[in-house]
Parts: sequence; structure tokens; C-alpha cells
Amino acid sequence: MQRILSRELPLRVGERVTIAGWVHRRRLLKSVAFLIVRDRAGLAQVVVAEPATRELLCKLTEETIVEVEAEVVANAAAPAGVELTDPVVRAPDGAAVPPPFDLYRPQLTATLPTMLDHAAVALRHGPRQQAFRMSAAAVAGFRAALDSEGFVEVHTPKVVASATESGANVFALDWFGRPAYLAQSPQFYKQTLVGVFERVYEVGPVFRAEPHDTVRHLAQYTSLDVELGFISDHRDVMRVLRDVLAAMTASVAQREAAAVAALGLTLPDVPAEIPQVHFADALALVGAALGEDLSAEPDLAPAHERWLGEWARREHGSDFLFVTGYPMAKRPFYTHPDPARPAYSNGFDLLFRGIELVTGGQRLHRYEDYVAALAAAGEPIGPYESYVEVFRHGMPRHGGFAIGLERFMMRLLEATNVREVTLFPRDLHRLTP
Amino acid sequence: MQRILSRELPLRVGERVTIAGWVHRRRLLKSVAFLIVRDRAGLAQVVVAEPATRELLCKLTEETIVEVEAEVVANAAAPAGVELTDPVVRAPDGAAVPPPFDLYRPQLTATLPTMLDHAAVALRHGPRQQAFRMSAAAVAGFRAALDSEGFVEVHTPKVVASATESGANVFALDWFGRPAYLAQSPQFYKQTLVGVFERVYEVGPVFRAEPHDTVRHLAQYTSLDVELGFISDHRDVMRVLRDVLAAMTASVAQREAAAVAALGLTLPDVPAEIPQVHFADALALVGAALGEDLSAEPDLAPAHERWLGEWARREHGSDFLFVTGYPMAKRPFYTHPDPARPAYSNGFDLLFRGIELVTGGQRLHRYEDYVAALAAAGEPIGPYESYVEVFRHGMPRHGGFAIGLERFMMRLLEATNVREVTLFPRDLHRLTP
Repeated sequence: MQRILSRELPLRVGERVTIAGWVHRRRLLKSVAFLIVRDRAGLAQVVVAEPATRELLCKLTEETIVEVEAEVVANAAAPAGVELTDPVVRAPDGAAVPPPFDLYRPQLTATLPTMLDHAAVALRHGPRQQAFRMSAAAVAGFRAALDSEGFVEVHTPKVVASATESGANVFALDWFGRPAYLAQSPQFYKQTLVGVFERVYEVGPVFRAEPHDTVRHLAQYTSLDVELGFISDHRDVMRVLRDVLAAMTASVAQREAAAVAALGLTLPDVPAEIPQVHFADALALVGAALGEDLSAEPDLAPAHERWLGEWARREHGSDFLFVTGYPMAKRPFYTHPDPARPAYSNGFDLLFRGIELVTGGQRLHRYEDYVAALAAAGEPIGPYESYVEVFRHGMPRHGGFAIGLERFMMRLLEATNVREVTLFPRDLHRLTP
Repeated sequence: MQRILSRELPLRVGERVTIAGWVHRRRLLKSVAFLIVRDRAGLAQVVVAEPATRELLCKLTEETIVEVEAEVVANAAAPAGVELTDPVVRAPDGAAVPPPFDLYRPQLTATLPTMLDHAAVALRHGPRQQAFRMSAAAVAGFRAALDSEGFVEVHTPKVVASATESGANVFALDWFGRPAYLAQSPQFYKQTLVGVFERVYEVGPVFRAEPHDTVRHLAQYTSLDVELGFISDHRDVMRVLRDVLAAMTASVAQREAAAVAALGLTLPDVPAEIPQVHFADALALVGAALGEDLSAEPDLAPAHERWLGEWARREHGSDFLFVTGYPMAKRPFYTHPDPARPAYSNGFDLLFRGIELVTGGQRLHRYEDYVAALAAAGEPIGPYESYVEVFRHGMPRHGGFAIGLERFMMRLLEATNVREVTLFPRDLHRLTP
């Protein structure tokens, strides 16, 4: 008999059907037993009265794969108003070894390291599963927004010949006897491809040999990269970012409404115009509010970003805040300066609930500017040669941004550790599973 | 003035507009000059009569970025029936260095290595651009088909602790002082995640330290991976694959109709039921037709696959052919045997126009079967421990497949080298750009 999903049961009252899934939970009461079966659509309650089936049920540990043929009966007290009675229960491969924690409890009682060690089963826990379904919905929203604006999806190399862009924090590997490095970002490729398609995006892994063990850093994460040409300046990039974030949030709300409700989440409103503050003004605001003198080493520490997040919520009713005009000294060499105030850049960060979520900006687009910028940074041009060549051949004004998917989900779910929203995290210590 | 795209010109006849793009070509005739501007939507013809502008035009080499403000005039002889007259031409960043080949010619005259060395500009050539737009459309079709069938998109680690799966052909790297390897496929992760989501897919890079220099092998390629649970056997997997291929082809036809027409392509029909032949029967057919005795070392060489491709077209009118039941000895240890003929597997290949495009099949799903399969393969269980653990905790019958995106595009475009359909190829020799 064709398997149906648990969510189809309310449409099949009075029929005999087959479901299949995992033993989620058993409750053996005196007069009756309940078997809760979990499938990808949810849970189904099976009522077991017959002694032989009850005896079988005693042996079918949690997570055993079962097939249940039974009658669908309406019962207002059961999940979704239906339950299955008079069942024939089969466990085609015998009983499973139960996982080291109870998946049916609302909270997993294990520590995060234990959950990560046993990711294969910990990920089956309802709230964890839902987080990753929401993540998939967010990425679908990202792509839909960009597809509708004429962007082309690309796939670029993850192994490169030079440890460029930030020098440190790269993973070295042996490429047929030659030294090579894992790509820290598709930055150079996406810029190059603006020369081909004008507008590109990539969803892919990036690698940072991040030696710090923090709750928000991973050695591999999923980067949502965007780059577009024929802009006036960074403000055109910020407008695209705004639309992308709105589409990501809307896609989560629409495709995973049940998960959002189950997790009790409040999704952020993305304002039609995200408020923005210039770096210099942000520094003055924060300095005055916290009584700190920030003029010596102008930078925004995490505590300052948190304060700005609260300020944006209070003053503008927004979970998001653009900080524009970061000092050139704080940005990578390919950053375009603000023509009116060249010590400041046409680069921005986007804070989401007081944490940096996105970095972006306008890039240099003229060959001479790259030569000058590399010289100013004291970098030889050699390792950058295959990158900067394109700027001799006609490149429009362009810019872009990158969203860290796991960091976005971390903030959306208000998780305390980015590893909670990563299927199989990679970091300083963790290389398995 | 707001920039418009070349394709919007026919709607703006009689107006003054601004376009922006690259100098695609200049034609300096005696009485008049033509400037062809290329943007992401196509080409626009600008008529230059005024002497000063003509003089400027002489300096604006191919690929220079230009902005043109001009009047839109109907002209049945011009591209899309319109041209731009009375122009003001600006080149905000001066003249570009022309690329080492003429991008305006129907065929690039450079060799493939030259094109790959200068990918940043060679990719701007119309037919090359179109190939990658079609590739993006194919991937969008892949995702749409699976999203509508309840699959969840996942992102898995690309760096792993053990050189498993095929042992050889892995890239080694230094992970914070520990040995690690680039993932050859997301095989183990997608199987594990069937235990979580039942149905998963991933679009991501895979890495093969392929020491052979052939027209169809890359050291990094984009794998379209699918895995699903609660199947009966491999035939359920083949049905999903058929639907996915149909969706990929339909998406290319719909989203990139102009590119398909420009390239003169005939897209394949994906039959509602793709014809299939058992490996043993295929061997007999090929052996008889080619007068070869294939019983000693049963395998299908590329020449045999080509013959089968022609046979499928002739006998079944199909560009696609499933070869099922590959010998267990030819498949990886996680392959599920055919219960009726255990020397053969529930694994299949899909041939597309006579070349292997997809490998897939049903996998083992019971812990004891993995222990036995690894022992039979003479492999210790240690390196596989974090992979096989999940099979103790309840795994449904499952299977899946992987499509090599570049190989799919290579066949679709009838390209002779997979590097023609890869933005920035990585192979034995090539690590830049």
C-alpha cells in the first residue's frame, strides 16, 4: 500500500492507510499503548490495544523505522484531530539503537558538544530540523530576489593560487605538488564576472583558518555573495541588499510559517528604507552615550554595535541599521573611497539587532587605482596579477556585499552559538562528523 | 538621466535616453560612424555623424565603458528595429586596453588555453556568456523540481577528516596542524541527512585530485546531489531523476529561449519514462553489435556507451538511457545489491547522448550491512565511524544520485571540452585565474 504522510491523515478519516517513519515516542499505559510516528511532515498517533502489537511495541526502541497500516479515526484530542487505530506495525530492519538523548522532549538535554558529536541524530530534533528548513527558505528568498532583478548565479573556484585578500587565516593545500589555498571569499571572481554579466551572485562555502574559538566564528561557512555593476555608488548596493533581506525574511515567513510559529519567533520587519548612520556620527553617538573617547583608534567594538542596535530600534523602530563610511584604513584595499571625504570609504556594514551581519560597499574599478592601492598597502602586484588584469579591459563602477548565512540564521533564531545553526560545523577543534 | 537597458529601446522611440555598457564594436565609414554598445541585455547601435564625437570614437577602443545619451529612432535595418542618433558619448574612465581577441566576431579565434588564461574577457563573448546563463537556468530548474517535492536544500562540509570513499585522488590540506582532505562528494552527509529531512539536495563544489588530463575531467566541479528515503528501490530514485532532468531542460528552454535560439541548440526531450536496459543485457547487445567478447572483464567502456546512446536514439527515440544493475564489484561499498541477483547492484548510470552523465542507486541502510561491506572491501571501520554510526539509529531505505553540472552543460551544448563550460576551470595544470 502506498505510503502517505502524516499531514494527509485528516483527509483520510475512515480509510485504512499506510504511514512510515521513525518511532518518535511510545507511551505504554495500563489499558492502551500509544506509538507516535515521526515523518518529514510531522507526527502521527497510533493507538495500540491488541496484546501482540503491544508486545512488539515494547521492543521497538525510539528511532526504529516502522511502517504502520491502520485505520484513520477522528479524535479531537489527538494531534491534528486524528489518530490511527487497529494497526499492523512492521519494523522491517529491527530495532534501532536509541540516541544518547530523548528526541521527543521539547529541549534536548545534551550539551552542545554532545549534540555536535552526535549530529546525525541530534539534527532530527524538531526545533533543530526547523531551523535548517528556515535556512533553506531564506536562501530560496535570496535567489528569488536576485533572479527577478537580472542577476546570474555563478560557481567559482574554491582553491586559489595566492593567499590574497587578507594574507593570514588561509588553509594551505597541496595541488598536484604545488602550493594552493582554500578561497576565503569569491570576491575577486564576482568582481571579474561583473565585467561579463553585470550582476552576479553565488551561494557557496568560504574558508577562514580562524584561530579564535568564539561563538560566532566558523572555519567554513556559507557565503551569500552579490556583486553588481553600473552603480552610482554604494547606496545602489544598499538598496539591493535591503530588497534581498526583505525577500529572505518573507520567504521564511511564507514557506516555513509552521516552524516560525512552533519556535515562537518574531521575524524582523525590513523597512522600505533601512536607517543609516555615518561611521563618524555613529562614533560620536556611541562615545557620548557610553562616556568613552573613541577618537584615538576609531573603530566600533561589539559593545558599540550592540548600543547602535538598541539605538536603531528606539529611534527608528528598526532591527536593521546601516553604518556607512567606514574609515579606508579599516577596509580591504579594493574599497572605493568617498570622493568627498577620501579618508572615509564608500563601504558599509549592516547591523542586524546590534550585530554585524553584512559587509559591503563600492569597489575600485580602475586599473590605476588598484596599482596605487596595492602600493599604498605595501603589497606587490604579482600575486594579484590575474585579478587586476580585468580592470584594464573596461570595468563599470560596481559594488557588492556578502551575507554569512549561518550568522543570519543565528540572529534570526536568537541562537547563542553559530554552531547551533550549522549542520556539521568546522572550527579550530572540529573536523568530524 | 537614469540608465535604461538596450532591450528597452524599442519602447522608447522618439525619446532621449541614456544607455551604458561596453564598446562592442566601432565601424568608421566615410560619411558616418557606428558605435555598437553591449550591455547585459544585448546590443544597441549608435549612429555618429558629428565630427567631434567621431574623433572621440576613434580613441574609444573595444571594451571601453561608455555612457551614451541619445535619441531613439526607429530603423528597420538596425538591431531590434531601433538605433540611437544625435549622441553625447562619455567614457568616464578613459579608453580600455583591448582584449587579445575580437569579442565581436561570431567565433573567438583564440585557442582554448588562451581563452582560459584570459577568462575575465573571453567570458564576455556572446556564446560563452549564454552558456553560463543557461547553466544558471538549469540549476534553477533542478532546485524548483526538488523544492516542489518536499526536498530540503543543505550545505555540508567540504573539508573532511578521512580520505574515504575512493581513497585515492584526494587533496590533502593542513587543518590547524591536523591532516584533512577536500571532500570528493557530499555522499555521507546527504545519506545522514535523509535520517533528518528524508529528502535533501545540495549544489556545491566537489574536488577530485584527478591526475588525468582529459577533455571531461576537472579537479573541481559543481555537483548537483540528491538523496531520498522511504523508497522501494532504485527505481524510485530514477523517477525523481527523470523529473529533475525534465525540469532542468524546461527551465533552460523557458528562461534562456533567446540563448538557445542564438546558439542553434536542439534541447533534448526527456521522455515521461526514460528507456532502461540492464547492464547484463547492455553488455550482450554491445558485444554482439561490435563483435567483442565482453565477458572477461564486464564493463562498459566509453565506446560502448556511445554505441548504447545511438541504440537508445534509434530504438527508443531517446537522448537518455538508464543502464541498471551494474555489477557490485564496480560500485562503491555503500551500494545496495539487487536482492534477486546479488552480484548485480541496485545502482544505475544515466547516459545522455551516449556519455555517462549521472551515477546513482539505492544505498545500504542497515548498520550490519555496512560492517560486512567494509570488511568485504578490506577496509577498517575506523575512518568510517562517524559516517556509519547513523545506521544504528534507524535509517530508511534510501538512494540518490549526483549530476555533474559542467558535464551536463557540455553535452547540452555539444562542447568538446568541459573547460568551455566552466567559468574558471581547475585541473592538473590550471590554478589561475
